[in-house]
Amino acid sequence: MTRVHPDPLRLLFIQAFSMPPDADYSMRKPGATREESMMNYGLIAPLLEGVEWEVHPGPVSHHGTSLVETREEFLAIAAARLPVVREACESGRYDAIVLLGGGDPGFLESCEIGQRFGIPVTACGNAQMHVAAMLGRRFSVIDVSEPHSVHYGNIIRSYGFAENCASLRNLERPLPRGDHAGTSIAVEKSRVDAGKTSDLLLAAVNEAEAAIVEDGAESLIIGCSALYWLKPHLQQTLSDRGWDIPVLEGYSCAIELGKLKVRLGVTVSGVAFPQAPAPRFRRVKKA
Amino acid sequence: MTRVHPDPLRLLFIQAFSMPPDADYSMRKPGATREESMMNYGLIAPLLEGVEWEVHPGPVSHHGTSLVETREEFLAIAAARLPVVREACESGRYDAIVLLGGGDPGFLESCEIGQRFGIPVTACGNAQMHVAAMLGRRFSVIDVSEPHSVHYGNIIRSYGFAENCASLRNLERPLPRGDHAGTSIAVEKSRVDAGKTSDLLLAAVNEAEAAIVEDGAESLIIGCSALYWLKPHLQQTLSDRGWDIPVLEGYSCAIELGKLKVRLGVTVSGVAFPQAPAPRFRRVKKA
Amino acid sequence: MTRVHPDPLRLLFIQAFSMPPDADYSMRKPGATREESMMNYGLIAPLLEGVEWEVHPGPVSHHGTSLVETREEFLAIAAARLPVVREACESGRYDAIVLLGGGDPGFLESCEIGQRFGIPVTACGNAQMHVAAMLGRRFSVIDVSEPHSVHYGNIIRSYGFAENCASLRNLERPLPRGDHAGTSIAVEKSRVDAGKTSDLLLAAVNEAEAAIVEDGAESLIIGCSALYWLKPHLQQTLSDRGWDIPVLEGYSCAIELGKLKVRLGVTVSGVAFPQAPAPRFRRVKKA
Amino acid sequence: MTRVHPDPLRLLFIQAFSMPPDADYSMRKPGATREESMMNYGLIAPLLEGVEWEVHPGPVSHHGTSLVETREEFLAIAAARLPVVREACESGRYDAIVLLGGGDPGFLESCEIGQRFGIPVTACGNAQMHVAAMLGRRFSVIDVSEPHSVHYGNIIRSYGFAENCASLRNLERPLPRGDHAGTSIAVEKSRVDAGKTSDLLLAAVNEAEAAIVEDGAESLIIGCSALYWLKPHLQQTLSDRGWDIPVLEGYSCAIELGKLKVRLGVTVSGVAFPQAPAPRFRRVKKA
Amino acid sequence: MTRVHPDPLRLLFIQAFSMPPDADYSMRKPGATREESMMNYGLIAPLLEGVEWEVHPGPVSHHGTSLVETREEFLAIAAARLPVVREACESGRYDAIVLLGGGDPGFLESCEIGQRFGIPVTACGNAQMHVAAMLGRRFSVIDVSEPHSVHYGNIIRSYGFAENCASLRNLERPLPRGDHAGTSIAVEKSRVDAGKTSDLLLAAVNEAEAAIVEDGAESLIIGCSALYWLKPHLQQTLSDRGWDIPVLEGYSCAIELGKLKVRLGVTVSGVAFPQAPAPRFRRVKKA
Amino acid sequence: MTRVHPDPLRLLFIQAFSMPPDADYSMRKPGATREESMMNYGLIAPLLEGVEWEVHPGPVSHHGTSLVETREEFLAIAAARLPVVREACESGRYDAIVLLGGGDPGFLESCEIGQRFGIPVTACGNAQMHVAAMLGRRFSVIDVSEPHSVHYGNIIRSYGFAENCASLRNLERPLPRGDHAGTSIAVEKSRVDAGKTSDLLLAAVNEAEAAIVEDGAESLIIGCSALYWLKPHLQQTLSDRGWDIPVLEGYSCAIELGKLKVRLGVTVSGVAFPQAPAPRFRRVKKA
Repeated sequence: MTRVHPDPLRLLFIQAFSMPPDADYSMRKPGATREESMMNYGLIAPLLEGVEWEVHPGPVSHHGTSLVETREEFLAIAAARLPVVREACESGRYDAIVLLGGGDPGFLESCEIGQRFGIPVTACGNAQMHVAAMLGRRFSVIDVSEPHSVHYGNIIRSYGFAENCASLRNLERPLPRGDHAGTSIAVEKSRVDAGKTSDLLLAAVNEAEAAIVEDGAESLIIGCSALYWLKPHLQQTLSDRGWDIPVLEGYSCAIELGKLKVRLGVTVSGVAFPQAPAPRFRRVKKA
Repeated sequence: MTRVHPDPLRLLFIQAFSMPPDADYSMRKPGATREESMMNYGLIAPLLEGVEWEVHPGPVSHHGTSLVETREEFLAIAAARLPVVREACESGRYDAIVLLGGGDPGFLESCEIGQRFGIPVTACGNAQMHVAAMLGRRFSVIDVSEPHSVHYGNIIRSYGFAENCASLRNLERPLPRGDHAGTSIAVEKSRVDAGKTSDLLLAAVNEAEAAIVEDGAESLIIGCSALYWLKPHLQQTLSDRGWDIPVLEGYSCAIELGKLKVRLGVTVSGVAFPQAPAPRFRRVKKA
Repeated sequence: MTRVHPDPLRLLFIQAFSMPPDADYSMRKPGATREESMMNYGLIAPLLEGVEWEVHPGPVSHHGTSLVETREEFLAIAAARLPVVREACESGRYDAIVLLGGGDPGFLESCEIGQRFGIPVTACGNAQMHVAAMLGRRFSVIDVSEPHSVHYGNIIRSYGFAENCASLRNLERPLPRGDHAGTSIAVEKSRVDAGKTSDLLLAAVNEAEAAIVEDGAESLIIGCSALYWLKPHLQQTLSDRGWDIPVLEGYSCAIELGKLKVRLGVTVSGVAFPQAPAPRFRRVKKA
Repeated sequence: MTRVHPDPLRLLFIQAFSMPPDADYSMRKPGATREESMMNYGLIAPLLEGVEWEVHPGPVSHHGTSLVETREEFLAIAAARLPVVREACESGRYDAIVLLGGGDPGFLESCEIGQRFGIPVTACGNAQMHVAAMLGRRFSVIDVSEPHSVHYGNIIRSYGFAENCASLRNLERPLPRGDHAGTSIAVEKSRVDAGKTSDLLLAAVNEAEAAIVEDGAESLIIGCSALYWLKPHLQQTLSDRGWDIPVLEGYSCAIELGKLKVRLGVTVSGVAFPQAPAPRFRRVKKA
Repeated sequence: MTRVHPDPLRLLFIQAFSMPPDADYSMRKPGATREESMMNYGLIAPLLEGVEWEVHPGPVSHHGTSLVETREEFLAIAAARLPVVREACESGRYDAIVLLGGGDPGFLESCEIGQRFGIPVTACGNAQMHVAAMLGRRFSVIDVSEPHSVHYGNIIRSYGFAENCASLRNLERPLPRGDHAGTSIAVEKSRVDAGKTSDLLLAAVNEAEAAIVEDGAESLIIGCSALYWLKPHLQQTLSDRGWDIPVLEGYSCAIELGKLKVRLGVTVSGVAFPQAPAPRFRRVKKA
Repeated sequence: MTRVHPDPLRLLFIQAFSMPPDADYSMRKPGATREESMMNYGLIAPLLEGVEWEVHPGPVSHHGTSLVETREEFLAIAAARLPVVREACESGRYDAIVLLGGGDPGFLESCEIGQRFGIPVTACGNAQMHVAAMLGRRFSVIDVSEPHSVHYGNIIRSYGFAENCASLRNLERPLPRGDHAGTSIAVEKSRVDAGKTSDLLLAAVNEAEAAIVEDGAESLIIGCSALYWLKPHLQQTLSDRGWDIPVLEGYSCAIELGKLKVRLGVTVSGVAFPQAPAPRFRRVKKA
């Protein structure tokens, strides 16, 4: 069912969720162009040369103007994204699907759907972990808040990367939530873009250095996608301090893993993601 | 918020899902009495003496007349059950909630909700694993089909019981699914109830014995709740063969774990299931 | 051999050891009433409503007026407790046995004895660990001294809970020992009961907080039973500091686990605790 | 030092070793064209479209006409390949280096060299393992002989993939060695190319199926590169038997991982592969 | 307190237990010479050249004429051996103590006692495991009965060798026990000594070969000391079958490990086996 | 092929490498006597009583006047040492071979060679780890520099001792390297020999104490052999501070392990280090 070495490659990006239209706060503006709707487009533009791509805004959040941090919120948004994935697969219009967002809601279930259609699905957290595993034995995560980093630890374990994770470092900049204003990450980003000092960037660099020196990190990945813009700044500042350590971000890793899977002709294993009923089965298996 | 040593204890059982009214096949009849709606009521009746209890039919399945086996199906049903849990907690009418069904859809997210209200939530798969861990080092699972047992392996790992699981043994009796009739487990149960031979029971006993002899099982738990009725028969037949090994089932374990949690005044840890935003946070954590 | 759903439940508590009659120091007074001989009776009284219970004073210590901390001491006391357990099982007077003391001397061997009689045996350390495993992934232990905490680490590993243990935190209040007066824990308890400040309580709270923040503890258990009285104070003070974390103690957990096992009709697995000679055997097993 | 998004990409393939000119047997003919010197070129040709590539014949084997199977042989060949890698890096002519051969002699040391120059190095065994980890939790290896599969187990562990390896399945077709003729794998390949039956292919399929059913394999990788030609045949035959399981081979995985690393601008971590002396250091680390 | 490089070395062997004088059955005859009281003396005689050695008969068994297999029996015998160890250390007459018997009752506690006196203590099971770990990654155990092999699995885990254990293979020749005659291992030994066939030896060889081929054993150790005489026969027969695998036995390993410890001037770590009260302590530790 | 209980034992020591004759700096003087060429001869002289021994200077370093720290350097020196090992085995003149140097270049490959000749090979790092595992559960390593300690972590993992390693503590005294003078360890040693204070010794003691208190070390081993002279000083100073913890060094451990292996008649397992082609093989194995 897979196109052999498709050229050009056709990618669909699916956002984790979109805000209700009446939300004051919106990280992902509804009326944005395709490029504007991709956060930090400049970081990934070269990787999209020669690629045909589209962006789906994702399901409308069930949680009003709050972002997604708790288990309950992640589960709701995960379930809501699956019909989007299924429809995209059924359309026959894409060679691969890249799930946007840092915490990968619905990733493994989407892989299962994609497997039926021969369409690989990648996600930003998972992809960063796979790339980090190519660079050294242990990575640390720079993340945004207590519940988000707990969720991130959960997906690390569910993907089988617990042994590769040196630590999760939490900057504790809670996301906006109902009547809780949260941290204005956008303001911090503006300051950095303007060449000014940023408490957030400084905290990230200090936690990254602590991850290296105290926790044994050999590479760094970024948890919540709201922090992905930190990547080049974190990389540069650590380098200035004498650390020769790679810093990853999710969009680029997920894009490149998607390309790799398309070109190798793989999605996920049908044995690990069996159909119901299964054409063949195993009498005994390990957990 | 918890009632101190409540007497009588008030339990709410929530089914995993209910079939659409027009389904030919229905494991859980809509018009059933409270007792009829609890599968194998005889096995658990003594445990409910002195307990006030109700049964919620669960959300209506999104998947028509198919049962729940794939990752996609489990995620959908899990998300649909959360509002039921939240509403039950908000009602103030229950001391504990027991999630019915074998594969625990939405369990950890429901624990998070319950934690906010001081109401413990237990689930049949998880509860069996905790009890099994009290009996010996390793348990094996008797399960119903290839995708269900893959799902069950996933929850074993997500609960942190992978080291305690000797094996999953799959009887491969696929559940009914759309135009696929599946195995009539009810017919097998009737045969056993009538004192006749049953291929299903024999297969279960043989797989259980293989789990003991080949895999190192020291206790047995049952995966899909459609097989819970096997418990006393499996226990007896293994005993007849000379094996002194405990066989568990999910309803009784989940009920007793619920009682234990109420009496000890615990739900789950607020550190492991943090609020957003969190009143206190940790700068560094392990996966 | 087990009574089915016995009501009332008949519990025997067995102390770890009793002091020789001429000992100056005695944590457990020989002439005490049943209730007085149970430390911190107030904490567990509600759990014993409707239960018939007795207390056995345990074997007389071989080590004079010293408490039990080293491997040599724990082994001696463990062996001395087994005949008490065997006799209690043979008497047919109890539905379950609860071994008192923090470090569980003779626990697994007592489980083996109980298994032969269909009588579950629980112990305070082991029971706390099982309950902690229901609350989150990792617990920390608050303990009394260097050798006791080393012993406690040993039982954690022997029970298979090493992965669930975030850390052992040692307050280093050595127990009385021959001519070494040790720490007067009783004096500290009196101060707390009188609403005064206590260095011991403060140290416990600080170590508990360090366990949360530095070690990843998601719940707290208490090692030596001489510290069990700390439970409500530790719980309250941590809550005052904003930490929503459960604190356990041994007696209540062991009582409730005993009840649960009686009601589920389980002791331990006969495969994990085989008879000699065994009615059935396995040709190959894993360590 | 890395070229940003180089186009076209310049790859150097380095063979594990070349036979002395007087060897009767030669898997890699000295006078071959570039394409002829790449085994199974047809499998990878589409992946090399738009790529500039060269092949280095590798160091001349120290072990006469024997292939490389023992630890002693692998160490000798590994050391001999490093100067080739260093020279290639110093030349500035390549964006990435792909080490050919199944057992990856000198891979980690070559990564260290490449890291100094900003040039990623990939190898066939390592690359297959990384891709397999994207497809499911556990892979099995189909390998050629007892010592080769022991060596392969060693590299699996040294890369940190032991938990991902379900098993190594050994076809025991020993490689030619001095006066020991060994298995004529080339003859088997000719038979398969001619559409005839092949004992080797049949054995590979049977071992692969045993790996799925008995060992828990969710994907398959091939150990010794002399067996890479089996890939499409193994894939097809397993599919014919109803197994929906991916089969990988080394060249394609190593090529695509090399591209991915170039495009993401990463080699390996300078913290995991430190210089001597190191610009920054860590006082404490974990093994 | 240790003698520096003592020459001659003074060893004390302590049997696990001695039978009551009226026992019909006795593996260790009360009136035996020193050499006769050492089972299979011929195997170890060369290792005792230049060594001054004595044998203590061990404590009298509490369990009548039964051998030691259950947890209860092992604990009783372990506690009874400690005073012998303590007295031997206090006597100042020995440079090292070797605990005889296969299942190491009281070993870790004896190490603690020896540590206080600077006297190393070794035991047959533990010593075999340490030597096996020098020979390859995984060993298998050939053992005598179901409960003994369960006990042996327990000590493997308590010593931290679980990862090194490929399997325990149980010949199921239950030891004599009260009115249960058990297997006459002595008869089997006589047959082998007389050059006749032996079912026991054949079973041991077959299980050993299965351990190699099915379980991944790279060396073999023997569980119950009643089987130590098998060592040379097992080694030879496996060699005849083409397997180049080391077979260990307990006495020789324990003797040589004792010598090594004396010459290196070590016992066990005072940090791992702390005194009470401890001169220095650690605030936090891992399980 | 092994001599039975050889007396006297004939040992060959093989240095890791020797400097080119024109090197300014030389830790191992070319014209030295046998005793002078063994660093810290005084520490091991008693262990060599009654032993016939020789020292081979090792291969001439490929890396000029630099010591060996990077992966590339370790691989080159490892490969260069193998022919020395092979020749020594073929000579029939030695009962055991001890590889000198801290980082064990070529150890496992040398074991393979020795296995063919029935000659055990030991190495200083590996031997320390085995002895440390006899003393407690976890050891820490005191090491010399960032790349050396990374290498040391690699060999710990490759030997299977990762779980036994509490930490590696790096004093960051880089070795001399080309135009980088490095630390004059010899000067520090002279100061200590003269009873003066030494920054290096003080740093080692402080890191050792941190390893005990923070990392859980129960014994200490020394990484780079250039630090082996610290052993008695580290042991004494820690003892003065109240720590009862064993400190090991490599030469003595490797000598005693060599003796033990000769007397027990073992090298390494032929199953773990198979010949090519192998006389017997296994169809399936674990990584």
